[in-house]
Amino acid sequence: MEKFTLLIETTDAKGLVYNVSKVLFEHGLNIDKNSEYVDSEENKFFMRTVISGEFNEAKLLKDIKGLLPQNHIIKLKPQTCKDIVLLVTKESHVLGDILIRYVSGELNANIKAVVSNHDHLRTLVEKFDIPYHFVDTKDLAREEHEQKLINQIDVYNPEIIVLAKYMRILTSKFVGYYEGKVLNIHHSFLPAFIGANPYKQAHSRGVKIIGATAHYVTNDLDEGPIIFQDITRVDHTYSWQDMRNAGRNVEKVVLSNALQLLLDDKVLTYSNKTVIL
Amino acid sequence: MEKFTLLIETTDAKGLVYNVSKVLFEHGLNIDKNSEYVDSEENKFFMRTVISGEFNEAKLLKDIKGLLPQNHIIKLKPQTCKDIVLLVTKESHVLGDILIRYVSGELNANIKAVVSNHDHLRTLVEKFDIPYHFVDTKDLAREEHEQKLINQIDVYNPEIIVLAKYMRILTSKFVGYYEGKVLNIHHSFLPAFIGANPYKQAHSRGVKIIGATAHYVTNDLDEGPIIFQDITRVDHTYSWQDMRNAGRNVEKVVLSNALQLLLDDKVLTYSNKTVIL
Amino acid sequence: MEKFTLLIETTDAKGLVYNVSKVLFEHGLNIDKNSEYVDSEENKFFMRTVISGEFNEAKLLKDIKGLLPQNHIIKLKPQTCKDIVLLVTKESHVLGDILIRYVSGELNANIKAVVSNHDHLRTLVEKFDIPYHFVDTKDLAREEHEQKLINQIDVYNPEIIVLAKYMRILTSKFVGYYEGKVLNIHHSFLPAFIGANPYKQAHSRGVKIIGATAHYVTNDLDEGPIIFQDITRVDHTYSWQDMRNAGRNVEKVVLSNALQLLLDDKVLTYSNKTVIL
Amino acid sequence: MEKFTLLIETTDAKGLVYNVSKVLFEHGLNIDKNSEYVDSEENKFFMRTVISGEFNEAKLLKDIKGLLPQNHIIKLKPQTCKDIVLLVTKESHVLGDILIRYVSGELNANIKAVVSNHDHLRTLVEKFDIPYHFVDTKDLAREEHEQKLINQIDVYNPEIIVLAKYMRILTSKFVGYYEGKVLNIHHSFLPAFIGANPYKQAHSRGVKIIGATAHYVTNDLDEGPIIFQDITRVDHTYSWQDMRNAGRNVEKVVLSNALQLLLDDKVLTYSNKTVIL
Repeated sequence: MEKFTLLIETTDAKGLVYNVSKVLFEHGLNIDKNSEYVDSEENKFFMRTVISGEFNEAKLLKDIKGLLPQNHIIKLKPQTCKDIVLLVTKESHVLGDILIRYVSGELNANIKAVVSNHDHLRTLVEKFDIPYHFVDTKDLAREEHEQKLINQIDVYNPEIIVLAKYMRILTSKFVGYYEGKVLNIHHSFLPAFIGANPYKQAHSRGVKIIGATAHYVTNDLDEGPIIFQDITRVDHTYSWQDMRNAGRNVEKVVLSNALQLLLDDKVLTYSNKTVIL
Repeated sequence: MEKFTLLIETTDAKGLVYNVSKVLFEHGLNIDKNSEYVDSEENKFFMRTVISGEFNEAKLLKDIKGLLPQNHIIKLKPQTCKDIVLLVTKESHVLGDILIRYVSGELNANIKAVVSNHDHLRTLVEKFDIPYHFVDTKDLAREEHEQKLINQIDVYNPEIIVLAKYMRILTSKFVGYYEGKVLNIHHSFLPAFIGANPYKQAHSRGVKIIGATAHYVTNDLDEGPIIFQDITRVDHTYSWQDMRNAGRNVEKVVLSNALQLLLDDKVLTYSNKTVIL
Repeated sequence: MEKFTLLIETTDAKGLVYNVSKVLFEHGLNIDKNSEYVDSEENKFFMRTVISGEFNEAKLLKDIKGLLPQNHIIKLKPQTCKDIVLLVTKESHVLGDILIRYVSGELNANIKAVVSNHDHLRTLVEKFDIPYHFVDTKDLAREEHEQKLINQIDVYNPEIIVLAKYMRILTSKFVGYYEGKVLNIHHSFLPAFIGANPYKQAHSRGVKIIGATAHYVTNDLDEGPIIFQDITRVDHTYSWQDMRNAGRNVEKVVLSNALQLLLDDKVLTYSNKTVIL
Repeated sequence: MEKFTLLIETTDAKGLVYNVSKVLFEHGLNIDKNSEYVDSEENKFFMRTVISGEFNEAKLLKDIKGLLPQNHIIKLKPQTCKDIVLLVTKESHVLGDILIRYVSGELNANIKAVVSNHDHLRTLVEKFDIPYHFVDTKDLAREEHEQKLINQIDVYNPEIIVLAKYMRILTSKFVGYYEGKVLNIHHSFLPAFIGANPYKQAHSRGVKIIGATAHYVTNDLDEGPIIFQDITRVDHTYSWQDMRNAGRNVEKVVLSNALQLLLDDKVLTYSNKTVIL
């Protein structure tokens, strides 16, 4: 029997769990998994429910909506493989990790295509029989290039766009167009470093830890809701190149974890934060 | 307004969330936090709900029980400081950590007493104005000694008994008497070592990781439901004493985390496993 | 200028650092990196020195040997890519991770071939233009099959043989033949589980942590010197398959780290333990 | 037999290990442990050697200095308990952890006194029979207050001054006076937050990790050489107070680790970085 994930975000109100589960009950559905979270300070209610059974989708959604406070977001998603598109530049470590998970059947996603501003990773991608699209930036204004990216991506109508080390800044127009769909991986440090070659800065600061942060992309670059973070230890024997390599390994792990959470429909967002249910 | 934690464990059935939340709703209660877990293989349902509001406890429990399948466990606990008793032998690292958390107000518990089979830690404990009871094993059979322990512990009627490195094996009679109330901390390794001086064994095996496991004590020693585990890294420069010291630091952290989960009524058990909600 | 790694293991004696560095000095060599370790209990001395410069290898080794106590092991290895052969069965997670590191230039090794007791992973391996040899076990006694494995492996004369989830037990004859060359990855747990489907056992025990151990293979299966270990957290919501997947991710990371240490000639062994310098 | 730690920092030069170990050899000393590190980019050489035996200290230092390049720092320290003074304000978590380690004999240091700008922690400290000095800031200019701190600290002539959550900014005069002696613990985050109540900021940013950094204090506040760092995981269910509590636990662990490294004379500094040998 097919399973569905029901995601609800709304203003908190008395009896929400009761009301929603009542509707599910009346539609004859099984609740396989249920998680809620209430942010009392912000007065927000979040719910993720995995349901199974036969049902009329339009009717179910209508009945639930009828019981929710006015400001709500409701999503009902089948637990099937999602279509995704990867954006890359020249680095292969994150891309390669995703490809191997894909080919081994670990990743419950269809990689529809890899799109890049360089032709560098074509050979690797085509080994896996995945279309590779090189969208050259040559002679193009940023907006023109992005429009070509969008045209290429939209062919595949992906549910998630993964910036697997796509190293070109995206305009707020692009980000806005794909709002809530773009996942990025970002190196990060204690303390933080801004600007060119953060690994050289981290090395010169003598950090003992290097991290990575996976987040949704919003207009505020590198500042969207954080989905997953992790770190690795380094020491004084690390050159800045060693630190970069250590950082790449963390990036790989962090992006994979974050992508898995998105594929499982476990991430809700509000106030530039995520709730992982 | 006082808050309560409602814990339910039962055979899974359709509409449980709906039915329970309906009763809470009808009693005019707020659901501040709600978590459920269903083990589909074992067909078990677990629920932890934090509620607030005025209510008639007997009536509420009766109403909920009326809706649950026959085999159920239901608990309703006020979110107040729990009374606890610590059992120790000679090592102070775990005890000391708990005492410092206690004195700094971090621990939402009342340490009613420390009971020991040695007089070794009296000075430390009395610094904190906590009664220290030395129950000598001299000339006593194991059962006689345990009966004296029980007599001493029962004076305080504790909700949780923490074995904070109590190094004497407890009989199944003792364990059975305090069923579901005794928390223990156990060193553990990858791979595991059994018998005398596990740190010497770990050292001689050249392990790179040392761990600790906090668990409920059941008749099967060191084999009760696991509540929390953590590890720390070691290397070839560690003597077995260094490994023991590293292990002690992990034990401290692991027991503190596990105790916090118990104090927050977040731990349910079944089939020798824990569900942390 | 080419660099070399000098590895020395010997009985400890006064002036060893002095004597060895004197010889290196007299040969006009630069010491780029130097680490020693003395196990005082076992009276053993270990040294790893990275040197650069022009020198007569035979003369250098002779001069050093002349100054060392009788029982010593001395190795001088150029810092070049090592030839390695991978043995696999059906699981692709560890293999895939190594292949991607290889193709991205991260791995300072030449993967000469992949050898397997199944034909399952041929397609994946051949994507990377690496020879894949399926050595069928059909109608062969264990020793006959191993001899065919050896014949195939020896074609490539590898410096390291990586058991990248090779799931068939190897005889002490095979292990002895490749002594000190075989790296294995082993799932491991707190507590440890022996026998069929350890993940089902771990799940039924309710562990909160899953680990992996990379070690040299010796005659005592899964008991050779430990090179690297790591863990990942799991909880009650993990099915045993989820635990297996989590375990696979750790295995991947742990084997990669251990292999890197071997490729960098950083691992010395004694008394079934490793010294990582 | 007493042991000593020899620490050398100097411009790199050929034969340094040889020359130093030659001198130690000629003085009849045993090398119990030896670690070096060369920063090839900065052309710096670092060495930490644990020696035992009878020797003439002045003669030994003279002989070693004679062989080192001009710009060098050389220290020879007996492996004895160091005298330390703790500075605190109102929070007890870091202080308490150090006190418990001290009383259990884990800490190879003499806590000579605790000095504070508040009287808040007197009761706790005096439980352990350690002098507590409250240096009131009332009616005092910053420099006047610091001079009183200095007067109080200097009574004990400590080798290390631990800022165990001392929450008042220290002037460069104070820091300069105790150069290379002051250890601090600082919360830290991915990304970093500056200004008032960083935990509120971290909470509002929705971080999934909270860290802590132990570092030497230099004139550039919170910017001295990093000694140790660690992190802990948090999630959306954490209030900012929960995040602060989680952060406190990390601070405790991180400061303890850093202090241990200082007590073992394992930390050398250069270019605002540490080398841990």
